[in-house]
Amino acid sequence: MTTIILSHPDLKCSTVNKRIIQALSGAKDITIRHLEELYPDSEIDVAKEQEILLRSDLIIFQFPFYWYSSPCHLKLYQDKVLTYEFAYGQKGDKLDNKLFFIMTSTGGDANSYRSGGRNNYTMSELLRPFQQTAFLTRMQYKPAHVFYNAPLLGYTEITDELLAKVDMFIEEYKAKIEKYNKR
Amino acid sequence: MTTIILSHPDLKCSTVNKRIIQALSGAKDITIRHLEELYPDSEIDVAKEQEILLRSDLIIFQFPFYWYSSPCHLKLYQDKVLTYEFAYGQKGDKLDNKLFFIMTSTGGDANSYRSGGRNNYTMSELLRPFQQTAFLTRMQYKPAHVFYNAPLLGYTEITDELLAKVDMFIEEYKAKIEKYNKR
Repeated sequence: MTTIILSHPDLKCSTVNKRIIQALSGAKDITIRHLEELYPDSEIDVAKEQEILLRSDLIIFQFPFYWYSSPCHLKLYQDKVLTYEFAYGQKGDKLDNKLFFIMTSTGGDANSYRSGGRNNYTMSELLRPFQQTAFLTRMQYKPAHVFYNAPLLGYTEITDELLAKVDMFIEEYKAKIEKYNKR
Repeated sequence: MTTIILSHPDLKCSTVNKRIIQALSGAKDITIRHLEELYPDSEIDVAKEQEILLRSDLIIFQFPFYWYSSPCHLKLYQDKVLTYEFAYGQKGDKLDNKLFFIMTSTGGDANSYRSGGRNNYTMSELLRPFQQTAFLTRMQYKPAHVFYNAPLLGYTEITDELLAKVDMFIEEYKAKIEKYNKR
């Protein structure tokens, strides 16, 4: 089973993430947890979320890239759900060997994520806090699936070309999920 | 003026951060904004926080290190307060050249933050998302002030030796603030 932990404060106004979630909703063996919708008051049901993680073979954190990290609801989820003696610590083996990757979207160009570019660091470098979280919880960290040049709300025209690019990204995303679930 | 943006979900049970904040409270020219206390419902007063940043020469993000990043309230602050055409964008020059550094506390040993150590990456590497935030908002990123081996609530005995170590850390913190304000 695959679980997508989705953090997006404004999914209905989103282009990329909304289209992805619409495409994956109802897919067999994929559970989507949209944190802002499930927990608008930030009161995360820790036992329920842990139970869902226990049943998952592949865990994905999906979010738009905000200030080089996730929106705050995903951080809250990490701090509340990945508890001592569940996700880490001597007896905290519940996530051992589960596969994990990040799917994120950014308005930046892929070329901007390098030394001297506008964003200075590679996406791999900027995602280190998540990579190390996966390491400490003994999950297998897999390469991030990143959508670059995401449209900026109110600034970018949504063309057919853009939507075709999103659809291609979705196909690759699905293929990746399928590949990892076959292992 | 120095502004400390403090994010700590449970300051009253804290040892290190509480002692630091007690020592700095009332200090001349230091404003402390404890986000969880000011905004328990997460409704950040953006205009007010921006106005405080405008008046600041030195901005510090202070927080306990949770999953290799800040608690969620600080992330929310970044996403709400560091707006387009205020903090970044063509006319977003309001933070230009202000000094910025991070003060964080971690239960980990300094030696664990390196290749092959339990935390694999240096603190500099794990703080890249903040460094790059400072870069994009054209602030001057200064070295982080990090308290290692912070006591774990309910596990670590609070000895006089530990408190003396915290007090020494506070003196260094004050000296750093003073140094940057003289520039």
